[in-house]
Amino acid sequence: MKKIGLIGFGCVGQGFYEIVKEKQLPVHIAKIGIKDRLKERKKHLPFTFSPEEIVEDSAIQIIAEAIDDSEAALNYALSALRQGKIFITANKKMVAENLPLLKEAEVKNNGQLYYEAAVCGSIPIIHLLQSYYKNEEIISIEGILNGSSNYILTRMAAGSMPYDKALKEAQEKGFAEADPALDVQGYDAANKLSILSYEAFEKYIDPAAVMRRGIELIKTKDINEASDKGFKIKLIAKLYLNEGKLKSYVKPQVIDTSHPLYHVDDEYNAVVIEGKFAGKQVLHGKGAGSLPTGLAVAGDLVHILNKQNTFALA
Amino acid sequence: MKKIGLIGFGCVGQGFYEIVKEKQLPVHIAKIGIKDRLKERKKHLPFTFSPEEIVEDSAIQIIAEAIDDSEAALNYALSALRQGKIFITANKKMVAENLPLLKEAEVKNNGQLYYEAAVCGSIPIIHLLQSYYKNEEIISIEGILNGSSNYILTRMAAGSMPYDKALKEAQEKGFAEADPALDVQGYDAANKLSILSYEAFEKYIDPAAVMRRGIELIKTKDINEASDKGFKIKLIAKLYLNEGKLKSYVKPQVIDTSHPLYHVDDEYNAVVIEGKFAGKQVLHGKGAGSLPTGLAVAGDLVHILNKQNTFALA
Repeated sequence: MKKIGLIGFGCVGQGFYEIVKEKQLPVHIAKIGIKDRLKERKKHLPFTFSPEEIVEDSAIQIIAEAIDDSEAALNYALSALRQGKIFITANKKMVAENLPLLKEAEVKNNGQLYYEAAVCGSIPIIHLLQSYYKNEEIISIEGILNGSSNYILTRMAAGSMPYDKALKEAQEKGFAEADPALDVQGYDAANKLSILSYEAFEKYIDPAAVMRRGIELIKTKDINEASDKGFKIKLIAKLYLNEGKLKSYVKPQVIDTSHPLYHVDDEYNAVVIEGKFAGKQVLHGKGAGSLPTGLAVAGDLVHILNKQNTFALA
Repeated sequence: MKKIGLIGFGCVGQGFYEIVKEKQLPVHIAKIGIKDRLKERKKHLPFTFSPEEIVEDSAIQIIAEAIDDSEAALNYALSALRQGKIFITANKKMVAENLPLLKEAEVKNNGQLYYEAAVCGSIPIIHLLQSYYKNEEIISIEGILNGSSNYILTRMAAGSMPYDKALKEAQEKGFAEADPALDVQGYDAANKLSILSYEAFEKYIDPAAVMRRGIELIKTKDINEASDKGFKIKLIAKLYLNEGKLKSYVKPQVIDTSHPLYHVDDEYNAVVIEGKFAGKQVLHGKGAGSLPTGLAVAGDLVHILNKQNTFALA
């Protein structure tokens, strides 16, 4: 069985590990890189405190990474790609901020980079943009791309709950990033929009160049007023062509029931793809969480194995 | 460029042809099989009145078929597969009723059968069930699978329109099958459910074995009563595990706003995939029409070309 390495054994890493075991994917997770020496761990797993060792191991040609530290993740990714290895990542910040550099390393050294798990958790949007939607003439992409913000807005509306309390709840449920500013100020959604732009329009947008507003100044009374009048406030991310130029924004918007994102609540994400041929398509699913995001990492892995013809799908 | 054949130049065939041209797919449509000798046609296309000629032509290894006649389509499909050719079809009735026979011919002769366009028009559900969702433990699949019925129910509700008038409108808009009984009595949805069962649960269900009720007896007053009380009536198709056994039905159901299919209106289709890992995912898009369904046929074609490595995606 093909040896693979896993860097990170937090929420996403453990979800991925569980799916590999339960679905009996034909790989052997030979090494698992972890950081915290004090945390209690399941015994008998091949842990190492040196992820570099995994990247350098010539017996390991496929590496899945799911860590928070985007600088460290970038170093592992570049090092793996420069050795012609296959690198699967769930780190949207790392991918979005460094896509040109990563693509250059990929092409130059015949490595392969995969990042389905970086955008919208379990929704296979990257895979579809790289395959099925290549035949479509995409006009716009619009979505609720940050599960934590959407959860907060939903709770504020449903429970007439203040912002701080809803944020705390999102953190307790494990939906929020380690630094919640990434979620609520729209940075996370801008990162995902940057990656979607590359896939859908073959054009890289630096996430810092996205017009961006967050939800941190929204008051419960704003939400209540919207609700009384039949609206919801949602953090909407959008990419679209305006007079031939690609525009991008992340901002809270007041939307009514006719908007395809009106019914996307709680920690769910959704993406609306508008194309010339098929009109609007909506993909709606869990945007975060251990197993949903682990499933996206496993999806990349199986795609790779199929390409290598080492694993025939039933 | 690879030569391909097209059988059928109606709504779907023309949509497919248009996308191949506009997206400059690297194939040459060498022959187009048509039936009606009296219909006026665009000149300069390589028409033939003998689709058999396309199936037998040794220079054509890939055939796309989009005709209504399911018996004729079956003959072309079996003949092509028995010659080890690749056959892409949009004919749900033909596929659903003959899946075991078709799969046998495919395996025995090393042919390949594709039918993305047979289920839910432009929604890439077959492709996803064959790839991404292979890692998921699917619990249930539920959907609005017939665009024509959904259009009729939507119009009856919105315009307080009688059934007959709404059906006529669906036919005029080109959403209905040639024989509308297939749509409104639930046969078409049962066919699609049969194909979904094979893909999601690796289990073939004869469409005749699906518990089936249609919408033909629903009155405008039923719909108005539901609407007054905050419900909609939808033709729901469902596959699910009940005490370890797979159950299937197509029937009109009264659903409320919390149901993921409540907001699916007009000619749209949607599929809810419920899995152990990612929970519920919803795919929502146009289930019928020339370009949406043509896009699905083109999706199969590009998947094939990629597998053959003759066509590198940008």
